[in-house]
Amino acid sequence: MRTVLECIPCFLRQTLGAVRLAGGDAECQERVMRAVLREAADFDRTLSPPAMGQRIHRLIRAELGGRDPYAEIKRQHNEFALNLYPELRERVLAAENSLEAAVRLAIAGNAIDMGVNSHVDVDQVAKIVEQALAVPLSGDVAEFAAAIDQARDILFLADNAGEIVFDRLLLEQLPLEKVTVAVRGRPVINDATRTDADEVGITALVPVIDNGADVPGTILGECDPAFRRRFDESDLIIAKGQGNYETLNDVPKNIYFVFMAKCQVVARHLNCDVGSMILRRAVGVAEQTATR
Amino acid sequence: MRTVLECIPCFLRQTLGAVRLAGGDAECQERVMRAVLREAADFDRTLSPPAMGQRIHRLIRAELGGRDPYAEIKRQHNEFALNLYPELRERVLAAENSLEAAVRLAIAGNAIDMGVNSHVDVDQVAKIVEQALAVPLSGDVAEFAAAIDQARDILFLADNAGEIVFDRLLLEQLPLEKVTVAVRGRPVINDATRTDADEVGITALVPVIDNGADVPGTILGECDPAFRRRFDESDLIIAKGQGNYETLNDVPKNIYFVFMAKCQVVARHLNCDVGSMILRRAVGVAEQTATR
Repeated sequence: MRTVLECIPCFLRQTLGAVRLAGGDAECQERVMRAVLREAADFDRTLSPPAMGQRIHRLIRAELGGRDPYAEIKRQHNEFALNLYPELRERVLAAENSLEAAVRLAIAGNAIDMGVNSHVDVDQVAKIVEQALAVPLSGDVAEFAAAIDQARDILFLADNAGEIVFDRLLLEQLPLEKVTVAVRGRPVINDATRTDADEVGITALVPVIDNGADVPGTILGECDPAFRRRFDESDLIIAKGQGNYETLNDVPKNIYFVFMAKCQVVARHLNCDVGSMILRRAVGVAEQTATR
Repeated sequence: MRTVLECIPCFLRQTLGAVRLAGGDAECQERVMRAVLREAADFDRTLSPPAMGQRIHRLIRAELGGRDPYAEIKRQHNEFALNLYPELRERVLAAENSLEAAVRLAIAGNAIDMGVNSHVDVDQVAKIVEQALAVPLSGDVAEFAAAIDQARDILFLADNAGEIVFDRLLLEQLPLEKVTVAVRGRPVINDATRTDADEVGITALVPVIDNGADVPGTILGECDPAFRRRFDESDLIIAKGQGNYETLNDVPKNIYFVFMAKCQVVARHLNCDVGSMILRRAVGVAEQTATR
């Protein structure tokens, strides 16, 4: 997905929020904002929005001497979500359609996006969970279930810390012997890395690889060869979060995206409302199928 | 008022909205956005936000070959507001405190900001008018009335087209023999120029001067010498709109600002909520008075 002009004010807004959350002082905030303005002035809009996210967060980490400002927040969010896990797992198991319930809760985890909200409120999360179980889901769960059945080799692309606990609920509905989970290679925002997969018990469940990159999404050209090989070999990819949608939607692979449409630009791209819960197969594949 | 970092995403959002409203095509939109990003990267933040507005709208007009993209919109908004004028005038005359009613309606005119909304809805405007007459006004109308009484020479700084009709209601409550109205010197956004003062009948009521500048506010250094002299000589200045507040708040003159606080940054500066109706004397003067 290309970057559109509406993304630019949003990049600047996110930059300021991120550098403040990271504890950057007034001078640091100013230097980062001016650097991002310069990057954005020359930004190649054929690239996806997460390519800009990568540059922004590299600038912020460089200003902070390479330190990951989100490390402690991510740990807290994993812990917070792990406390919810037993009850949420009961909900999935008790559901009439456990796969659908797990997809819905995985999207709830995406909706919460605890990295954006530095403070997470228990009541607010409970509300998001109930909504996610009740509101319409834009997607075909039966088709998704069939794709899982038919798959030989499933690669699950995780999104954020905290959210990754909700992803575990979905993973547990998959044939685990066929599944590998991929996380980001290096810290970027609150995106899950190997540390997070370890903390929430996913490493004990399935093989976990990392993609070698520091992009809040999956730009294949930025990922290391081992990840790219694994990506190519998989016959089903489940991609969590809007960043993975923005970076992989045009890739001609059998990808199912599972996320909440969080901004107007993505909602327009999907022809849905902001806040819609999405389970969607990559357009590249759908078109290939249609023209067969 | 200095520009704060929060203003930057807003500049970009406004740029995109303005260039689209002006009918700029996709390439024009992109060129303007990139040019504004470069300007913003080096922008002197000791300047007020309208200084950036001036640069943005110069870039847009230059892209459009110098044509004023708002000319027709301004004409429509004046006409729209003139249709409301007789009824609003009755409301002012029938009010227990006509000056207060006129201040409130002048703020309603500012709240509508018809330049930002390309389409103006009659029902929506009626609602804004009723609210403006009912909700709390942050300011001391009796003190304002006394300042008007005591003044020898009043300079009224108008804001936008359309809104200038609402300003006329306030002007009619002033001792007209002491009043001069000032408009912008050249087109910028939907700000009122001499043409608008003519169209809405203000030129027939009081002397109208222009400030020689194309700033959506009043940056004295950008105004021509004749205006600056007139500004210096006045012992009471009534400044309409947020742009005039942002540019004149620190000026040590007897200025009353009349406007709605439309953004978080200005609301924080005023220690009020967004949407508050403001009648406020310049801080510079208040401080001078306090330390006497």
